[in-house]
Amino acid sequence: MNRTNRGDSPMKRALDEARKAGLRGEVPIGACLVLDGAIIAAAGNETRVSNDPTAHAEILVIRRACAELGQERLVGADLYVTLEPCPMCAAAISFARIARLYYGAQDPKGGAVESGPAYFQSAICHHAPDVYSGLAEAESAQMLRAFFAERRGQAITTG
Amino acid sequence: MNRTNRGDSPMKRALDEARKAGLRGEVPIGACLVLDGAIIAAAGNETRVSNDPTAHAEILVIRRACAELGQERLVGADLYVTLEPCPMCAAAISFARIARLYYGAQDPKGGAVESGPAYFQSAICHHAPDVYSGLAEAESAQMLRAFFAERRGQAITTG
Repeated sequence: MNRTNRGDSPMKRALDEARKAGLRGEVPIGACLVLDGAIIAAAGNETRVSNDPTAHAEILVIRRACAELGQERLVGADLYVTLEPCPMCAAAISFARIARLYYGAQDPKGGAVESGPAYFQSAICHHAPDVYSGLAEAESAQMLRAFFAERRGQAITTG
Repeated sequence: MNRTNRGDSPMKRALDEARKAGLRGEVPIGACLVLDGAIIAAAGNETRVSNDPTAHAEILVIRRACAELGQERLVGADLYVTLEPCPMCAAAISFARIARLYYGAQDPKGGAVESGPAYFQSAICHHAPDVYSGLAEAESAQMLRAFFAERRGQAITTG
């Protein structure tokens, strides 16, 4: 299997969702959930617009895919995310029994897959997906850098 | 401040929510969120009824309290939970800027506060609440033990 080709389209959708999130003032992170070759849900962060600190892109696509399918678990699903998931999202990915996780940039400050507690390798993790990182890494990271640089710029000019 | 007396009533509410969750076939865990002395939200697990693997009691009270108050953070809030939070809930507690976490029983198999990765002490955690554990510990643990013993019994009789 050519994993790169297989991942191209859902990762592009995740990047589109990240871009849209940034345009509405959210941290530009996007996710896309695929089951049996079909995109079931896609979202960018919505913590601000929803007043919900749990509304990370990954949580949203898991919740929406489960609602769409009427099931509590997403066995066999692929999740594409533009940034390394945080502990909240990593645990949700495990609870949902997602089979494969593809992500873009690493997040040494907040990630929990390769960074920090490396949740999927910990003794309290009872289901770990296969993990593929580095997809569209440069584009994902650039979008985040530009977003935070602009916010710092605004803070300086309005501070 | 007498922390035990202060915690009595919200923890009783969390235990009530845990009991109700168990009666509807959910893992019996309950939570209650208090701000400025008032209970803003209380819930038990709803993962089965909602087909939502993220619908842990803590996530639900955080989401509902934020919706109720129209804000993304719960600065100064107290969260009462019957069981040690998992990594998903621990990270959500941090993101919501909850000030104090009170919980009942420890969860060595799935908890992330004192057990496993001890998220609040990790380098990727940027806000940690004050933590008080052991409130109503025996009652919380007994409810979970009875629930899982009954499920094992059912599995044996129907298996």
